Amino acid sequence: MLPDPLTTAAGRPDTLGVLGGMGPLATVDFLAKLVALTPATRDADHLPVLVYAVPQVPDRVAPILTGSGPSPLPALLAGMHWLVAAGAKAIALPCHTAHHWADAIDDASPIPLLHIADAAIAALEAGGLSGATVGIIGTRATWQAGIYQDRLCRRGFDTRTCRDTELETVVLPAIALVKQGAPERARPLFERAIAALLDGGADAVLLACTEIPAAFAGHRLPARVIDGTEALARACITWGLSRRT
Amino acid sequence: MLPDPLTTAAGRPDTLGVLGGMGPLATVDFLAKLVALTPATRDADHLPVLVYAVPQVPDRVAPILTGSGPSPLPALLAGMHWLVAAGAKAIALPCHTAHHWADAIDDASPIPLLHIADAAIAALEAGGLSGATVGIIGTRATWQAGIYQDRLCRRGFDTRTCRDTELETVVLPAIALVKQGAPERARPLFERAIAALLDGGADAVLLACTEIPAAFAGHRLPARVIDGTEALARACITWGLSRRT
Repeated sequence: MLPDPLTTAAGRPDTLGVLGGMGPLATVDFLAKLVALTPATRDADHLPVLVYAVPQVPDRVAPILTGSGPSPLPALLAGMHWLVAAGAKAIALPCHTAHHWADAIDDASPIPLLHIADAAIAALEAGGLSGATVGIIGTRATWQAGIYQDRLCRRGFDTRTCRDTELETVVLPAIALVKQGAPERARPLFERAIAALLDGGADAVLLACTEIPAAFAGHRLPARVIDGTEALARACITWGLSRRT
Repeated sequence: MLPDPLTTAAGRPDTLGVLGGMGPLATVDFLAKLVALTPATRDADHLPVLVYAVPQVPDRVAPILTGSGPSPLPALLAGMHWLVAAGAKAIALPCHTAHHWADAIDDASPIPLLHIADAAIAALEAGGLSGATVGIIGTRATWQAGIYQDRLCRRGFDTRTCRDTELETVVLPAIALVKQGAPERARPLFERAIAALLDGGADAVLLACTEIPAAFAGHRLPARVIDGTEALARACITWGLSRRT
């Protein structure tokens, strides 16, 4: 009934599966960065990409913060299985918070999940920031779930996040502004949070919520700031190009 | 082996399948418009979207212009079958030229293909342009394949395209610039071709190549210009929302 993946173009070794939709705009931002950062002079130079973007996946925040609500894991695993069946050879998950279930997806999957924290580590090290103290700006759930801390710590980085009052009065309102379509009003707030982390001793700042880089679209990121979404796109491109040789 | 689509979130009646990758940037542009134009206050308001974006599909232009080279149809049908198997309930093809095979895909598919020319007709009529003379800017293959002319003509529109020298020296080089990642350099060329069609008697201009609106990202389209990609996104949203009731 189903075509054999090996007979389709998606049977290529560099086919990337994207488990998206969390949220839909973050998926588009990731795909746009994937295309923009791929060295290409013609369509066929780009990676084959399969996307499963089902924004009806149960909420990721409540299970992390309060342990309540249905787990999104079954829906994430269903998406992973479809990507594998369709011919994907690695999985990207362009959502920081959903990485709480990254190990569970990776364990159940016959193909690797390219973890966003590993991508951030690669970006930090490529920027000469090995072993740096990294300030992480994102939602409370991303920090509480430890999406970044464990992997960065194992690699010799130190991590910290915003003070609680700053999260409540600066970062979360700014994220809400982006979601409401007002990135211009959000950007100065993010700049304030970034400056506070750098002033407080961070050597670099990692944007660990997909809404934050969206507020800087068309603007240059401040120095020593890493965009997690861009880092993931670069890691996927590095993976895909290495699979072609 | 494969999960039953009905047990996954993609079993929803409003799941859209996107046969993309032709080119990769055009697919991202379509997905961005789909998200931006969907009336939504939270992630779950957006349509579930499955994307099969394999830019290694054989070239669409040579088979249309010269009848030479391998047909892209088998690869397009493989993509369609995967989207159907994954739970898609309609197909969008965000590539004008590939619509040469739209009827063949539609005939082979158990789910409808939402044709980009029907989407453009809906946009023209919504803009008070019923029966207008429509200038069409796109590749030579899109014009030669008659992607738009037949359907617009049957609906009472008149159609025309750029003069041949303008196609060669303005439109096609500009499309190549977008594919090379230089939309800023392409935009003034497209503006020149649009002005020439309007000056020559067209009531409206249809951007019938997905690379053209990509060059206007972040910029307002000139008046009386219809973006085929945006029209397709709106048609998909109309379809998806109607499936929820």
